[in-house]
Amino acid sequence: MFLNKIIFVLLPIIFLMLSYSESYALIEKNILQLSINSTPVELYEPIKYVLSLGGKRIRPCLALMAHSIFSEDNTDILFPALGLEVFHNFTLLHDDIMDNALKRRNHDTVHVKWNDNVAILSGDAMMIIAYKLISKTNKSLLPLILSIFNKTALEVCEGQQYDMNFEKQHVASVKEYLDMIRLKTAVLIASSLAIGAVTGMASEEDVEKMYLFGQNIGTGFQLQDDYLDVYGEQEKFGKNIGSDILSNKKTFLLISALNAKDRILVEELKQWLARKNYEPEEKINAVTNIYSKMKIDTITKKTAQDYFSKGLEFFSQVSIPNANKNKLRSFVEKMMMREY
Amino acid sequence: MFLNKIIFVLLPIIFLMLSYSESYALIEKNILQLSINSTPVELYEPIKYVLSLGGKRIRPCLALMAHSIFSEDNTDILFPALGLEVFHNFTLLHDDIMDNALKRRNHDTVHVKWNDNVAILSGDAMMIIAYKLISKTNKSLLPLILSIFNKTALEVCEGQQYDMNFEKQHVASVKEYLDMIRLKTAVLIASSLAIGAVTGMASEEDVEKMYLFGQNIGTGFQLQDDYLDVYGEQEKFGKNIGSDILSNKKTFLLISALNAKDRILVEELKQWLARKNYEPEEKINAVTNIYSKMKIDTITKKTAQDYFSKGLEFFSQVSIPNANKNKLRSFVEKMMMREY
Repeated sequence: MFLNKIIFVLLPIIFLMLSYSESYALIEKNILQLSINSTPVELYEPIKYVLSLGGKRIRPCLALMAHSIFSEDNTDILFPALGLEVFHNFTLLHDDIMDNALKRRNHDTVHVKWNDNVAILSGDAMMIIAYKLISKTNKSLLPLILSIFNKTALEVCEGQQYDMNFEKQHVASVKEYLDMIRLKTAVLIASSLAIGAVTGMASEEDVEKMYLFGQNIGTGFQLQDDYLDVYGEQEKFGKNIGSDILSNKKTFLLISALNAKDRILVEELKQWLARKNYEPEEKINAVTNIYSKMKIDTITKKTAQDYFSKGLEFFSQVSIPNANKNKLRSFVEKMMMREY
Repeated sequence: MFLNKIIFVLLPIIFLMLSYSESYALIEKNILQLSINSTPVELYEPIKYVLSLGGKRIRPCLALMAHSIFSEDNTDILFPALGLEVFHNFTLLHDDIMDNALKRRNHDTVHVKWNDNVAILSGDAMMIIAYKLISKTNKSLLPLILSIFNKTALEVCEGQQYDMNFEKQHVASVKEYLDMIRLKTAVLIASSLAIGAVTGMASEEDVEKMYLFGQNIGTGFQLQDDYLDVYGEQEKFGKNIGSDILSNKKTFLLISALNAKDRILVEELKQWLARKNYEPEEKINAVTNIYSKMKIDTITKKTAQDYFSKGLEFFSQVSIPNANKNKLRSFVEKMMMREY
């Protein structure tokens, strides 16, 4: 009897923390069952298409995992988590029009498969669906959840605008770049963790810590992405190595290199940026070489690592037992180590 | 003392109903003061531009007026009303890209003045700002307000998609057209009135009646617009008379005419639709003539009038004293009579 009681108390606190794979399964199962089967089909087909293309579902999984370390009942977080994923996919859909991207997750982008108008309007509808899902939660928490989400959603737009400005700008500082990726990428990761904490009934202070945890690891993930696009292994990374170099994309690596002290190497880099005729392999090798001589690889890895450490420090300050944090922490650590 | 008390009781109930011009002044004053002064300017300038172009502010004024017949304190409706106007302007902004419209309220559209990317992203930000404003209300009412707004916002997207489908479709029925304008135009009018009723603490039944009032007059307004584009007086209407005829736009008039029984006139109409070379005046006169012979003018006016009557009937069922309804009713009646 006594033993039973202990088990009863411990079970929800320790054993019900969700792992990434459990969260992922929950999201995959539910996202394809969203009742997006309405008419007109021209509006809803592209949405189903986009949501069926998969991806790692990082944001909703983080929301579920964050919630599960504070509370064992998923009811209040499942729909907001799905909403965060729908919102993220909406931003990709509209970004792909603006960037004129042809492929997304190895499939044709919506504006290619259909056309720009379909992509604009389906994206708009996706944002509304995201809000619908986010609103399906504990009514008393809705004002707080919405205020976090509204602020974040607007920041993501600001980040995308800064990103587009960047591509036209001649000079950009590392600080400006870091602030851009904070807005474009990190705040949605941060919000996912914060909203999970809110629905888990975490204290205001813990919600704030979870947000800062997310903002830091989110920035770290983007720096890691920039790094892997140059130094990743082709098969593991899944994208073409060097694509950022070929498109002169202003990543952390390129901006750091352009701001480096070695004038000769900077000049050499600028020549490659200006050059119109080259073999792709030739340019990738040459620019990678310049980066390596400038130790940009080490700098990038170190900067990402600093963000990860800072993020984990905030996580460690969250006022729940360490044992509850294991699954979420180990997922984040695994992400930090990824080479793809 | 006794007299004071009576005045104190009567004032909020009868004298504080807002008129259209009072509501309009309130909206104009506040919409330009929205703190949309943030960076990046590329994102926020187009939003300020769009909101400064004016317009009748019908939706927010209806929300304010609806609220004021139930409650004297505007606090809970002012921001949602502004949100409804921002949302409406967001839909115009994105529709203008999709329709490739060059002018809006006699000014260059955003995608012309800037470019498509700016128009897409600023529109996205506007939708989020709309949600932010709509969320600034009585917390206990937020779930209901959001559920009305989310449903409506998605329906507006559906309406826009049906509208685009229509332009490609060869045959369309009057019923399909009426359902399209219900979604594209009427439901947002309906929601504005319903949300005003909700923040005014109206009963569920009265909220529903206000919604149906709005849905019917909203449909009537669109039919009237279609009518005035052909039969309006140039100076009063403010748009070019006959523009729908020149662009073969599938309006209530054209669809009714194509579905008319007089085969000879229908054939004549179809020839005009197919014709490539003509003087604008010639085509406008010829098609208007066909419409008039078919009595499409009378049919359109009658159909609009039926919607108006039905709407006013729902309004009359709202369980508040008739005196409270005067200002809103007289505004709607004035709109019904407008010739511009």
